Amino acid sequence: MKHINIGELKNYYNQEVTISGFVDNIRNLQWVQFVIIRDATGKVQVTIEKSVEENKKMIEIIDTLPLESTVKITGKLLESPKVKLNGMELIPTNIEVTSESKEELPFNFKDLSNVNLDTRLDYRFIDLRNEKNNFMFKVQSTLIRYMREYLYNHDFTEIHTPKLLGAASESGSEVFEVKYFNRSAYLAQSPQFYKQMAIASGMGNVFEVAPCFRAENSNTSRHATEFTSFDVEFSYINDFTDVMNLEAEMLTYALEKLKEKYGEKIKEVFGVEVVVPTTPFPTMKLRDIYQELEERYGYKVDESEKTDLTTEAERLSYKLAQEKFNSEFMFVTDYPAEKRAFYHMRNSEGVLQGYDLIWRGVEITSGAQREHRYEEICKNAKEKGLGEDVKFYLNFFKYGCPPHGGFAIGVDRLTMLLLNIPSVKETQFLFRGPNRLNP
Amino acid sequence: MKHINIGELKNYYNQEVTISGFVDNIRNLQWVQFVIIRDATGKVQVTIEKSVEENKKMIEIIDTLPLESTVKITGKLLESPKVKLNGMELIPTNIEVTSESKEELPFNFKDLSNVNLDTRLDYRFIDLRNEKNNFMFKVQSTLIRYMREYLYNHDFTEIHTPKLLGAASESGSEVFEVKYFNRSAYLAQSPQFYKQMAIASGMGNVFEVAPCFRAENSNTSRHATEFTSFDVEFSYINDFTDVMNLEAEMLTYALEKLKEKYGEKIKEVFGVEVVVPTTPFPTMKLRDIYQELEERYGYKVDESEKTDLTTEAERLSYKLAQEKFNSEFMFVTDYPAEKRAFYHMRNSEGVLQGYDLIWRGVEITSGAQREHRYEEICKNAKEKGLGEDVKFYLNFFKYGCPPHGGFAIGVDRLTMLLLNIPSVKETQFLFRGPNRLNP
Repeated sequence: MKHINIGELKNYYNQEVTISGFVDNIRNLQWVQFVIIRDATGKVQVTIEKSVEENKKMIEIIDTLPLESTVKITGKLLESPKVKLNGMELIPTNIEVTSESKEELPFNFKDLSNVNLDTRLDYRFIDLRNEKNNFMFKVQSTLIRYMREYLYNHDFTEIHTPKLLGAASESGSEVFEVKYFNRSAYLAQSPQFYKQMAIASGMGNVFEVAPCFRAENSNTSRHATEFTSFDVEFSYINDFTDVMNLEAEMLTYALEKLKEKYGEKIKEVFGVEVVVPTTPFPTMKLRDIYQELEERYGYKVDESEKTDLTTEAERLSYKLAQEKFNSEFMFVTDYPAEKRAFYHMRNSEGVLQGYDLIWRGVEITSGAQREHRYEEICKNAKEKGLGEDVKFYLNFFKYGCPPHGGFAIGVDRLTMLLLNIPSVKETQFLFRGPNRLNP
Repeated sequence: MKHINIGELKNYYNQEVTISGFVDNIRNLQWVQFVIIRDATGKVQVTIEKSVEENKKMIEIIDTLPLESTVKITGKLLESPKVKLNGMELIPTNIEVTSESKEELPFNFKDLSNVNLDTRLDYRFIDLRNEKNNFMFKVQSTLIRYMREYLYNHDFTEIHTPKLLGAASESGSEVFEVKYFNRSAYLAQSPQFYKQMAIASGMGNVFEVAPCFRAENSNTSRHATEFTSFDVEFSYINDFTDVMNLEAEMLTYALEKLKEKYGEKIKEVFGVEVVVPTTPFPTMKLRDIYQELEERYGYKVDESEKTDLTTEAERLSYKLAQEKFNSEFMFVTDYPAEKRAFYHMRNSEGVLQGYDLIWRGVEITSGAQREHRYEEICKNAKEKGLGEDVKFYLNFFKYGCPPHGGFAIGVDRLTMLLLNIPSVKETQFLFRGPNRLNP
């Protein structure tokens, strides 16, 4: 008999069905047992009348069955308006226990409000049984699905670049070292160099969704030593506004499709509205933001801090974006080049040809036109004091390379902002930080 | 002006268009310059008459421009049946050089037949400009796209499991060690434990496409120290035939969609037919294969080797699958359990509840029902001598866990077989082996 997802049961009234799931709850009353079964798609009530002779074996099973055991149940599905849970109940003819829970749960996953985050992460496989947490990853998967779909529809090729590198590129201090037979290898901090290699190889438009590794010994709500990055790079752009436009279009497409599929459930489970933005997203120059933040909200910082957005300025810029543009998103441009990586293009005044994207007060992306001209990229590298380690990368530009640009989005951070979750520790499937490598 | 892909030009006859690409070839004749421009979607001829006064500046540019430089060209597109290349030519009004090739190419990427593979890999960014190599990754990306699509359509959630682990699980000898602040971490050999954690967490059906790392000091056409794995795991199966069926359906779906999109071009570029299989795939028991290989082809091996398929038996099993079942695919079942990982389920006779899938004579997958019962999985681990390192994993099964199974497919190996390419060294974007970490 075909196994049916609980979420699809409403199509099977008055039919015999087989479902499987965890035993979510049992109410064992004098005349009846009510058993709630939960799978990844929903919950359903199974009703076992004690007066029915044929139910004897099932009643015995339920009498001693620990919660969170898994079962497979066959029975007849009835429409029962009196049942609070979806107005249906399953009258079983057979219950098979497929696994038994052996120990009491370390905490009640249905109410995590008083459970320490570290305990939750130690028992992540229990923590994820929480409806909110479980649903979070369906939402994440769906959002990424539609971001990918947008790119497929625009002639992008998905690539898989190596995470084991021969040299500690970019910034050696934050790179993990790997014992690699008789030498050392290093873990990729980002696929930046390699997605640009794809461009130099004539692959046109590429993207990758893959882990990145950062040996930063810091503990914030936004940082992890390993995270999933959604990386995009494409050829033949005119300038960095092409990159901003593509990113805005992609996010708008994905949020619209996500809202269609899960908008209502996200509101119900997380209390958050999925807002589909309109394109183009508003854009402000860094110095103009500081000026308006001062004028509007009296926010002042020292000139020396104005080379980047402070965390507080990021937060206030959300207010600004909403009031000034009625937008949750805002691009910030005109960062000074000296603060940014050598592979970003600058104009003749040294202004970075790139941007950050702020969503709901947090930076979710850096993007830019890249320097594709061999002499210029060599000069930039030299200015930053980079030598042998980036030589292999500089070679990519020696034999002709299309003008190009791209961006990267942290998947965990994106999920955090979408669902209003306090930390990436909760939006990563399994968080990795300086003090956490388990489970 | 909108930038147009060369592959889409046929929709723009008699219009002004702007294209960009690499300078693939120049024929500089007495009266005319023929310039071939190449982007990731195709090639087009640009024709510059020398007698036309307005062309002077463009003629000068082309006169000294090295091949493989990149350009942006605006002009009028004409239908020209006399032009061999797609029967069209672009009459330019403006040529802008966007990057100049600075050095002679290390080899002629248009004919790689005499180029050493190591040289090609050293200059992979040139090697990939070869039409065949460039197209290979479009095919790979498209195949993976449709495999994902099948899973999305069947309620699967894509997850991103950590690659940095606290313990060297499974088989310590082949694990890379990472310096992790003041301790050691290890690189994941596969997401096996974590995709099972997702099952124990009640996530239902999950998959992941991500790098795996194997510290094997071996050099074969099928092995790499880092490779991309397409991993699937799902809940509430009845037995391992559910796993085989899902894999067969997924591959059939993806190959059918791939053939629709690129079947003809694959035939043209690689000389390979994309064959859409029919489901279910044929299945044979390991010992029956050896018996038939002996009867049909006189292939004999010692009993001691019959615990697995030898490379030659794999090869011959393709012939067998074709002759006996008219199929390129064949499942092989009934492996002895002692040769397989402890997390695979066995039946009461110790027969593995799993399979290998052979495609065109090479194993592309192992799949199985997993042991989900706490006592049994603990017993299996103990028998294999596994202790503290897998304790975190055994915990996943303590609090109830759905019956489940899954499989993994090597993306690079799949591409190799699909396009009849001799080695994964060529089907990885950047191959990684014991002696290769660059570029």
